[in-house]
Amino acid sequence: MSTDNSNEQRNGHLMIIGGHEDRKDDMTILRRFVELSGGKAAKIVVISAASGVPEDMWKIYDEAFDTLGAGNRLHLVMTSREDANNPDIVGQLADAGGIFMTGGDQKRLLANIGGTAFDRALHHAFKVRGACIAGTSAGASAMSGHMLASGAAGTQPEKGAVNLGAGLGLVQGVVIDQHFSERQRLGRLLTVVAQNPYLQGVGIDEDTALIVERGAGIEVIGQGAVTVVDGRTMHSDMADAARGACPELIDVRLHLLPPGSRYTAPDGDERFAAPAPLLDLLRTLTKAVAYHEDH
Amino acid sequence: MSTDNSNEQRNGHLMIIGGHEDRKDDMTILRRFVELSGGKAAKIVVISAASGVPEDMWKIYDEAFDTLGAGNRLHLVMTSREDANNPDIVGQLADAGGIFMTGGDQKRLLANIGGTAFDRALHHAFKVRGACIAGTSAGASAMSGHMLASGAAGTQPEKGAVNLGAGLGLVQGVVIDQHFSERQRLGRLLTVVAQNPYLQGVGIDEDTALIVERGAGIEVIGQGAVTVVDGRTMHSDMADAARGACPELIDVRLHLLPPGSRYTAPDGDERFAAPAPLLDLLRTLTKAVAYHEDH
Repeated sequence: MSTDNSNEQRNGHLMIIGGHEDRKDDMTILRRFVELSGGKAAKIVVISAASGVPEDMWKIYDEAFDTLGAGNRLHLVMTSREDANNPDIVGQLADAGGIFMTGGDQKRLLANIGGTAFDRALHHAFKVRGACIAGTSAGASAMSGHMLASGAAGTQPEKGAVNLGAGLGLVQGVVIDQHFSERQRLGRLLTVVAQNPYLQGVGIDEDTALIVERGAGIEVIGQGAVTVVDGRTMHSDMADAARGACPELIDVRLHLLPPGSRYTAPDGDERFAAPAPLLDLLRTLTKAVAYHEDH
Repeated sequence: MSTDNSNEQRNGHLMIIGGHEDRKDDMTILRRFVELSGGKAAKIVVISAASGVPEDMWKIYDEAFDTLGAGNRLHLVMTSREDANNPDIVGQLADAGGIFMTGGDQKRLLANIGGTAFDRALHHAFKVRGACIAGTSAGASAMSGHMLASGAAGTQPEKGAVNLGAGLGLVQGVVIDQHFSERQRLGRLLTVVAQNPYLQGVGIDEDTALIVERGAGIEVIGQGAVTVVDGRTMHSDMADAARGACPELIDVRLHLLPPGSRYTAPDGDERFAAPAPLLDLLRTLTKAVAYHEDH
């Protein structure tokens, strides 16, 4: 994966982080974020709009990025859609190399910024300028087009237990869950996949990031793993199951990608070619379609 | 699945129970055990040899089977291999319709009865006479040929974290884990499968039973589900991974069978034919090879 600092040549990166990334010690994930944003001199913007305590969030990341030597950093406060359509606020993205979305509640984040001028500027930064967009916890869930909005994490899948909402759509064809192993969320991710077999479920552990380089490839870093559940060839009785019942699921494909897993998009560097069962996921995640500003 | 009481015609049944089966209220699983053992008049034998507190175990099941009206019941105490080779004790299996193995520690159970005259009598009862053999918790794990003997249940698989031992071999080609969802044991079952890709992993939730009718089919009853992980087509770096590391696993097949799932062995009743991804599991579980007493 390239860490080339030249803005002209760079592919945009997404860092999809499972929450609780280390902010005190090795800071593997935040350090990589600074690199992918263009290095210590790059402008980094922290978005706390998912959180009910935005200043507390800023304080955490202000300190962490200070420790990492990223001096050009800014807290963008958006507590309403007015803020997210305010040109003075949105304009701050124009030269940002990195944009970091904190945890909180992904529904609050989308209520504040979904479909606003800020949302469009975020897509522009990622797709046109090659900025790095990171999201942790709620900020991670918000990145996909179909967003896991809420859902009980029972020990088993449960029909009707999970609700999807409209996310930011920085990546399509997947649903993202976070704090994945720590909060035993396989059941709810299987529920999503059983109800929406055309989406692949991506579960990210704490202090773990799935890095997606637009048009290029993926990499897993951190302490945990990334779990993928693919229900596209599954047999299921979900349609007939009663609400609240555990559906039968047969032939779900499960992938577990530990830190160090690294694959190029199909037709990329052969040294990191993905095995066949991952190709569709790679295509989906890294897809770099032409970007229309009026999306 | 047949509940025919005629001993002459009956296929043997295994009830592989994930622990904490209800013993007070509906008793779905224990009730079915009594049925499959031949009904209330059938002789039921309780084996507590996995437990360090055999009398406490007996008390629990004595009360439960009493409530269920199974009057012909017996506690077989075996605290040594001498006991398990004692003809007076082993002889008690000769006319038992049901044999119930309690929880405890599967290593203790195997240390006491593995390879003894009792072990042979157990196979005879199941395979020749068509008795019902139930095992819960440790008693469930002990049923497979390759037995999950010990292993940390981390949130993710971990190379070297699980040890297999020699089990009773009432069923082959699978490894059984119990208290499965409740104790978050997917990680350790994936470890088993990653280290032994020719074995299918079968994880059984609490108060849940996988019933196997020899030569005929399977059924899931109870409150939880049965999770199957099949790594036979998996790509994995397990061989190269460091001890203690989380391996990469790609294309594990996962099946989730809730209560009510019921499938016949291949070429059985077409109404309950299994979908293709389950056929090998069905073949493995229900396989009724000719039984040689000197196994």
